[in-house]
Amino acid sequence: MSGQDAPAAKAPPEAGDPGMERRTRALGEADQPSSLVMRFGRERPLVLDSGATIEDWQIAYQTYGTLDAKRSNAVLVCHALTGDQHAASRNPVTGKPGWWETMVGPGKPIDTDRYFVICSNVLGGCMGTTGPASTNPATGRVWGLDLPVVTIRDMVRAQAALVDALGIETLFCVAGGSMGGMQVLEWAASYPQRVFCALPIATAARHSSQNIAFHEVGRQAVMADPEWNGGRYLELGTNPKKGLAVARMAAHITYMSEEGLHRKFGRELQNREKIAFGFDADFQVESYLRHQGLTFVDRFDANSYLYVTRAMDYFDLAADAGGRLAQVFRGTATRFCIVSFTSDWLFPTEESKAVVRALNAAGASVSFVEIESDRGHDAFLLDEPEMFATIRGFLSSAAAARGIA
Amino acid sequence: MSGQDAPAAKAPPEAGDPGMERRTRALGEADQPSSLVMRFGRERPLVLDSGATIEDWQIAYQTYGTLDAKRSNAVLVCHALTGDQHAASRNPVTGKPGWWETMVGPGKPIDTDRYFVICSNVLGGCMGTTGPASTNPATGRVWGLDLPVVTIRDMVRAQAALVDALGIETLFCVAGGSMGGMQVLEWAASYPQRVFCALPIATAARHSSQNIAFHEVGRQAVMADPEWNGGRYLELGTNPKKGLAVARMAAHITYMSEEGLHRKFGRELQNREKIAFGFDADFQVESYLRHQGLTFVDRFDANSYLYVTRAMDYFDLAADAGGRLAQVFRGTATRFCIVSFTSDWLFPTEESKAVVRALNAAGASVSFVEIESDRGHDAFLLDEPEMFATIRGFLSSAAAARGIA
Repeated sequence: MSGQDAPAAKAPPEAGDPGMERRTRALGEADQPSSLVMRFGRERPLVLDSGATIEDWQIAYQTYGTLDAKRSNAVLVCHALTGDQHAASRNPVTGKPGWWETMVGPGKPIDTDRYFVICSNVLGGCMGTTGPASTNPATGRVWGLDLPVVTIRDMVRAQAALVDALGIETLFCVAGGSMGGMQVLEWAASYPQRVFCALPIATAARHSSQNIAFHEVGRQAVMADPEWNGGRYLELGTNPKKGLAVARMAAHITYMSEEGLHRKFGRELQNREKIAFGFDADFQVESYLRHQGLTFVDRFDANSYLYVTRAMDYFDLAADAGGRLAQVFRGTATRFCIVSFTSDWLFPTEESKAVVRALNAAGASVSFVEIESDRGHDAFLLDEPEMFATIRGFLSSAAAARGIA
Repeated sequence: MSGQDAPAAKAPPEAGDPGMERRTRALGEADQPSSLVMRFGRERPLVLDSGATIEDWQIAYQTYGTLDAKRSNAVLVCHALTGDQHAASRNPVTGKPGWWETMVGPGKPIDTDRYFVICSNVLGGCMGTTGPASTNPATGRVWGLDLPVVTIRDMVRAQAALVDALGIETLFCVAGGSMGGMQVLEWAASYPQRVFCALPIATAARHSSQNIAFHEVGRQAVMADPEWNGGRYLELGTNPKKGLAVARMAAHITYMSEEGLHRKFGRELQNREKIAFGFDADFQVESYLRHQGLTFVDRFDANSYLYVTRAMDYFDLAADAGGRLAQVFRGTATRFCIVSFTSDWLFPTEESKAVVRALNAAGASVSFVEIESDRGHDAFLLDEPEMFATIRGFLSSAAAARGIA
């Protein structure tokens, strides 16, 4: 690790842009996060799946709870596509509670009175871990598209370097949903000795064709925005927020279920009286989606969106094993608990079952729970009592086996 | 009807745009279509659901087969969102075969040796029927967003005026899929005496919340393109093709099924050897989607996309009956055949069943077939032998009942 500090790159202010202040704050996080930061230099280069190497890099993280004397109670929480390290603490950009406060905290299923929780921003992200909005120390310029493309395995490599630096040999648990679940599976595959138990939620061992297609739409929406400027918008002082908002809107639909949307919005109008015969948001679902798009661009970097979606597209855990997923897990001692949701059509239960079958074939210890919910993929972020009970029970039993107090 | 001719509005040429020639041809169709055209003047104004009136308007159509002496064998085929009047004849813009040539033609299920088939471009379209790319005769300028917003019922009103002008009192059949199916249902509800039998395929009696959400994403993609210019792009010589392509890409995913995409593309790479670690189209599904987006903008008008999607959003056949769909069809003598597809998640079978239940409650004659297919919503446009057999049988039986030779 080195203590090298790079100057913060901030976009020039844009007059009349109401999201400007928050956006400047968000981009400030890229180099100077309001988090703990571990910096690595040439003594710990990051060698990526692509063959490229990043020599000076950093990882931003938060911790909750206390590491026990045996260093045996560490839980690594992995975040999803647009998440960050603020799992259980106020987000400095949005001012909102952490994205998994229902799950992580004192007395919560991932109980910070018992466990030492680490959550780091992913490689390629924009909240303080090296990503396209970060400054490349070698040039002093924003990385932009010069940053090598990263994979889920690269994200996990970066996390492993952090865990090493924290002096933790074996993680008690690696947990996460969606892309976070991909990281969990990758941890269990790449570092089986270092993962006592694993909690992949609402995820898959490879990204489906349909999901790649949705990501491609999002990326095309970003790149179609002339303010994207070939990825050099931070240097040029432009902001591809319209394209990024469209990308977020399309993605957001996939995070919900048809039933959930119907229950929440149906065909309810903004103006309860009658339809407006125009192109303003007439239905409540339209204004909800527009709001999702508009608030997202204040907290997320457009190039990070490209990198992180691409990492998910490339995820195919069994690719090197010729598609034989069981072979990836053969001989593992890690205990698994797999969770899926009935109305999740982005990562449908069938994807989780494929992982369960492979783990069974590999002779692994695995439990599997499909939870009835109409909230679609986002259910893993929401108040789902059966999920909480499942995870609480799984962790308690594993903690007893590991001798955690 | 009046014979009024308006000058054709063409966008100024754009240097270096490979789609320019085709696009100019496509826009030429808006006022001067390569089709039959029925023009209406102040003696037949179109009074719309919004309360607005269009005084000078036209409808472009194609016919196939021969009207019998009793004028009893006319089949009105209604097209979907991005379809047009060229159901069974070469499309003048794309040079491709008609969109339903598998269904309509001599010896085909909708047999032009027996039936006289009419297919017209919808109101709000861009292939010769009055739409936002047409010239407003009152001003000599392109309508653009000054065109009143239209509904599915307005589209049907325009078709009814055409059918009147052709001297046809009762249609033997009204048939169509997706938005075409919405028109079929609207015909049966608004003009029950004029529809002997009805064939709504892969459709719904109201547009769902999720479908409105997808449409809204598409519209936002178009309107986010600075070349859209508040809808005045034709006059300003710009072309919101990037936004429209993104809209088409997002929509196209919804026309296919997860299984179909997986079967067709899986995770196959463009370069079979290895992933490219970049943002060019790496997976086959990406280049397929990009192609869908790029070719669409050569044949479709961006504002038409806004109008026609909006018409679908507003469709709710039972709205005026307080949600009681059976009441809409009470006492109908029309024979119905409803068709859905197992893997269609845009207009799932449950939507068709809701129509079937309402028709049963209304005492109507209705048959219903759910067809096993992994091709998703687009199955209705494809080679589906069970669909062909179903429709052939239904029409033959109805034709015998109507005394068609």
